[in-house]
Amino acid sequence: MINIGLIGFGYWGPNLARNFSANPDLDLSYICDFSSDRLRAASAIYKETRFVNDPEELFKDPSLDAVGIATPVSTHFDLARRALESGKNVWLEKPMTEKVDQGEELIELAEKKRKVLHVDHTFVYTGAVRKIKEIMDKGELGEPIYYDSTRVNLGLFQQDVDVIWDLAPHDISIMDYLMPFKKVAVSATGSNFYGNGIVPKALLTVYMENNIVGHINVSWVSPVKIRLTLIGGTSKMILYDDNQPSEKIKIYDKGVDLYETKEALYHLKVQYRVGDMWAPKLSDHEALSYETKHFVECLESGRTPLTDGKAGLEVVKILVASQKSLHGRGAPIELG
Amino acid sequence: MINIGLIGFGYWGPNLARNFSANPDLDLSYICDFSSDRLRAASAIYKETRFVNDPEELFKDPSLDAVGIATPVSTHFDLARRALESGKNVWLEKPMTEKVDQGEELIELAEKKRKVLHVDHTFVYTGAVRKIKEIMDKGELGEPIYYDSTRVNLGLFQQDVDVIWDLAPHDISIMDYLMPFKKVAVSATGSNFYGNGIVPKALLTVYMENNIVGHINVSWVSPVKIRLTLIGGTSKMILYDDNQPSEKIKIYDKGVDLYETKEALYHLKVQYRVGDMWAPKLSDHEALSYETKHFVECLESGRTPLTDGKAGLEVVKILVASQKSLHGRGAPIELG
Amino acid sequence: MINIGLIGFGYWGPNLARNFSANPDLDLSYICDFSSDRLRAASAIYKETRFVNDPEELFKDPSLDAVGIATPVSTHFDLARRALESGKNVWLEKPMTEKVDQGEELIELAEKKRKVLHVDHTFVYTGAVRKIKEIMDKGELGEPIYYDSTRVNLGLFQQDVDVIWDLAPHDISIMDYLMPFKKVAVSATGSNFYGNGIVPKALLTVYMENNIVGHINVSWVSPVKIRLTLIGGTSKMILYDDNQPSEKIKIYDKGVDLYETKEALYHLKVQYRVGDMWAPKLSDHEALSYETKHFVECLESGRTPLTDGKAGLEVVKILVASQKSLHGRGAPIELG
Amino acid sequence: MINIGLIGFGYWGPNLARNFSANPDLDLSYICDFSSDRLRAASAIYKETRFVNDPEELFKDPSLDAVGIATPVSTHFDLARRALESGKNVWLEKPMTEKVDQGEELIELAEKKRKVLHVDHTFVYTGAVRKIKEIMDKGELGEPIYYDSTRVNLGLFQQDVDVIWDLAPHDISIMDYLMPFKKVAVSATGSNFYGNGIVPKALLTVYMENNIVGHINVSWVSPVKIRLTLIGGTSKMILYDDNQPSEKIKIYDKGVDLYETKEALYHLKVQYRVGDMWAPKLSDHEALSYETKHFVECLESGRTPLTDGKAGLEVVKILVASQKSLHGRGAPIELG
Repeated sequence: MINIGLIGFGYWGPNLARNFSANPDLDLSYICDFSSDRLRAASAIYKETRFVNDPEELFKDPSLDAVGIATPVSTHFDLARRALESGKNVWLEKPMTEKVDQGEELIELAEKKRKVLHVDHTFVYTGAVRKIKEIMDKGELGEPIYYDSTRVNLGLFQQDVDVIWDLAPHDISIMDYLMPFKKVAVSATGSNFYGNGIVPKALLTVYMENNIVGHINVSWVSPVKIRLTLIGGTSKMILYDDNQPSEKIKIYDKGVDLYETKEALYHLKVQYRVGDMWAPKLSDHEALSYETKHFVECLESGRTPLTDGKAGLEVVKILVASQKSLHGRGAPIELG
Repeated sequence: MINIGLIGFGYWGPNLARNFSANPDLDLSYICDFSSDRLRAASAIYKETRFVNDPEELFKDPSLDAVGIATPVSTHFDLARRALESGKNVWLEKPMTEKVDQGEELIELAEKKRKVLHVDHTFVYTGAVRKIKEIMDKGELGEPIYYDSTRVNLGLFQQDVDVIWDLAPHDISIMDYLMPFKKVAVSATGSNFYGNGIVPKALLTVYMENNIVGHINVSWVSPVKIRLTLIGGTSKMILYDDNQPSEKIKIYDKGVDLYETKEALYHLKVQYRVGDMWAPKLSDHEALSYETKHFVECLESGRTPLTDGKAGLEVVKILVASQKSLHGRGAPIELG
Repeated sequence: MINIGLIGFGYWGPNLARNFSANPDLDLSYICDFSSDRLRAASAIYKETRFVNDPEELFKDPSLDAVGIATPVSTHFDLARRALESGKNVWLEKPMTEKVDQGEELIELAEKKRKVLHVDHTFVYTGAVRKIKEIMDKGELGEPIYYDSTRVNLGLFQQDVDVIWDLAPHDISIMDYLMPFKKVAVSATGSNFYGNGIVPKALLTVYMENNIVGHINVSWVSPVKIRLTLIGGTSKMILYDDNQPSEKIKIYDKGVDLYETKEALYHLKVQYRVGDMWAPKLSDHEALSYETKHFVECLESGRTPLTDGKAGLEVVKILVASQKSLHGRGAPIELG
Repeated sequence: MINIGLIGFGYWGPNLARNFSANPDLDLSYICDFSSDRLRAASAIYKETRFVNDPEELFKDPSLDAVGIATPVSTHFDLARRALESGKNVWLEKPMTEKVDQGEELIELAEKKRKVLHVDHTFVYTGAVRKIKEIMDKGELGEPIYYDSTRVNLGLFQQDVDVIWDLAPHDISIMDYLMPFKKVAVSATGSNFYGNGIVPKALLTVYMENNIVGHINVSWVSPVKIRLTLIGGTSKMILYDDNQPSEKIKIYDKGVDLYETKEALYHLKVQYRVGDMWAPKLSDHEALSYETKHFVECLESGRTPLTDGKAGLEVVKILVASQKSLHGRGAPIELG
């Protein structure tokens, strides 16, 4: 049995608590929150758990194996560092840290301490994304060409970060998982309309090696909710519509072929292929439950999580560069 | 009766011929094309029309009042200049010209010759866009915040221009018509994947005065056809889905209000409004027929067309700047 | 405070328990189920409640004011009769009873005992149906013409009743609430394909006074889930799509007008009206919570519930007639 | 070259003229209409064709091989009989005749004269229906269980026939083509609301051998246009949505299995299968062009058309029985 403690019982924490608690290999030993109200709410559900205000109580308990951190991003670095230093395995919410060097330090520390550093990119563990990965790994799409995602709706307007820090981590982590190519540069645009210094609507472009491009459209000010991702390959293309209750992903046997001909010295000939569409059945497991199981397996086997510190850092790097580009009206920022 | 001649009977020309011919105030006197095959095709339909290979025959005929030009964009400037110099009114396909100074020269020439210079931004004359304009002119949306358009599908891959020259003129002309604000800067991103030097998928951002922003996503390599525009205002928001056979536009009584409170010294308070949705009945007139009528009225009354040379030039300016930004990976280009 | 007990903690019972428990005016004093497993499941959630196997314990407790009955339909009559005889107010699941005379007896008994007999036609309390009712009560649709509903999906194939007893009560109760007209006759068709004597797919027609007609299509063997209702009036028409997360109801300013003309002695002239569409914002209250509040108000004020015994009986009458017609391949059954 | 004449240039006739004229093996020798206006309209398009008012001119021309009949249904029998008696092959619009015995007489006459009698059930020749047939012929659906079609919209309210004569022939002919099983009985319901004796909205049930059932919902008074067909089999199920511009048909690997178990003496066990969905690419040939080619092949080879007199008669039988059942409020009518 693995003893785990949870820090943060706000918006997302209760989901972690529920899944940690339901996993047969985990014992949810602690829930920690600064707010006594939140602890009271937690204690109505979890009976066998200790409720504390101070995260140090978790760090200093030698019987605790792992810590989940679901607090505001500005506290991630300090809490995760203390946890790792105390010899705990860490489940960290996304985005992993505010700064690139903080992420690098956590990765190094986890390696030194031989502990698991897992970043919660939940979407990577959904049935839809896992199925897309499986299809792409088999080479069905041919060469990847682009990733294009729209994630817009009305609401949850944040007051301290731009929309890219709130919504784009989902798309960046999915994109990086499906297209693990070197990211070369980032351009981001958007505008602060409301006068509060916050950008509620933005476009991101991620330039990757091999001329692959990622386009991400995020917004808090859309009249309708759209969760639509297009993934283009040379052989096939995928539409992933997360709004659909079923048939979330559709694989289109469609493509464009360009080739030289004798007749056309200057021009390449373009040819379209349009074939069948196919919507595979997806696992309807809750992503977080699957992810918790994966976390446990990594702890038990010493394997590296799919969404480890490196994956978390990749997202932070792109966010930080996007933020900079956003202030430069799209001026491209090279990624080291 | 106004005598009009048409130059170019390729992809779009037949639509002009059909609408010019059906208008009771126009006499389609000439159809000109370099290809004898195309002229034969035209002559099977139009019986009372003269068919010529050389546009000069039109320019030198003093009885001809107007000329429609539906040829490749690289020929627009020369043909339109010759037509205006010959004292003809001009209907010119979009994009108006390849270069900004060419557009400026045509505008000047038309003014000097006191001739109508009409640029065919067809979408401006659709029932959907006219209705949106009517709603916005009444102030129903409040202050405009953003324009966001996705125009993607598989096909019609061009071999000599990037996708922005092919598809973005539609969105830019609609946006400029609905939001006639000063355009400040442009950023564009995309990638040439196929190795033929052509960008088949791109994102454009147009920065306008008052922190208004335009986001445009165009692609020839999407597995599905999307024609979706969101228009955000402080009071209401519009979804315009041109793929729908009916209910193409929906007005959402939704919005975000930010205001200062005594309690929140540092933060603005955010409040969402969510109310009814309304889909007004649209005129189902063919846009080109309505536009032809408008062109005739401008010729008869001396009024300036809704889509005059200035409107055409605005589109060219943004395309030229986008192209430049595209090569700079999104580096912003200021608009004079 | 009203003391209520719940009999049946199977498929639907837990929803009642949750809503009864959450209502500030109700005290959920008992949960009764024959299965000890189910009682254990209930006792993990409700701490202050007594758990019993025998419903008689509820009936004989003089401090208990009301009883909710969420057991198989074959037991409804006996349990509700015992409850009313014991002086309890009753919340009864749909369909109310298996037979018409049973329903009549319960109504009579409730009147005699001056107790509330509430039948749980949950859909009547949804924001969507309440809004439609409001619109129809204002006369916006003009004269009602028809009700047409499709409620199909794959699954929950029952083994002891035809699909009409399972799915049609929803539509019949909504229809009767929105169109409280005299029902004249019923025709029902369907077929037992699987050889188990159960009809998994059926069409119902309910003939009402004034030539109004109700058409209901129910199925357990559809590859897709459809929950679509069309309501036609002489002035306007409504589409109610319960599958949509938002914009569940759309009011179309569409209609057909027929009138006599001097020229057409034999024929009526037909004219179509096509105008705007409007999707009103709906209350997103949980229907069962709203219904529970309504039940409490009826208990406190002595008012008759919207879905009282009479409403429940109307549904039973139509189901019983439908069943008979189904066996007669659509032969119409007159309603008394 | 086959010489063909067309009788009737009203609503549908122009489509026949266009396709007959475009077929390289047909010579459109005559167009006949009672209305001189219609003939003038036709003569503007077809130059090499003779225009006549009297159909007898076609019948008596020995060089004419075939006649297309696109006139009101009440004239079908007389015109087709005269055409066959004159030794012409016949292309007859649907529904074939008003009465069953008329249809039988035409079939007999065609056999006696060894002429082709083709009934224009256009939908049978669409890419969608042909693909469904191909899939069903391969046995992919398993045993057919049901056909369920909804064909509703606002408009084209007829003044002399009920909606079933106008819209149901499409569904009946598709159903009979896909499920060529013995039809046993018919029940139809609907109501005359508008007081003109016409039923604008109806439900049809067709009972077939093997407990297969056909459900058809047709209406002229729906606020939205629906063209949705579900086809259920024991192995797979099909959704055919003719409103979609692409992906018109979707094959669902879904089904219900019922089987006996030792434990359940009285009940069959129900099990659901839910697998992938697949949308095959369809031919985008115009159905009428494909059908015209088929007609020509039948004339040249002496083969029987897919939609011959027998297929046309099957539709008439069901329409006549439906009409009778409609007047009996759903009372079932046995099919001989």
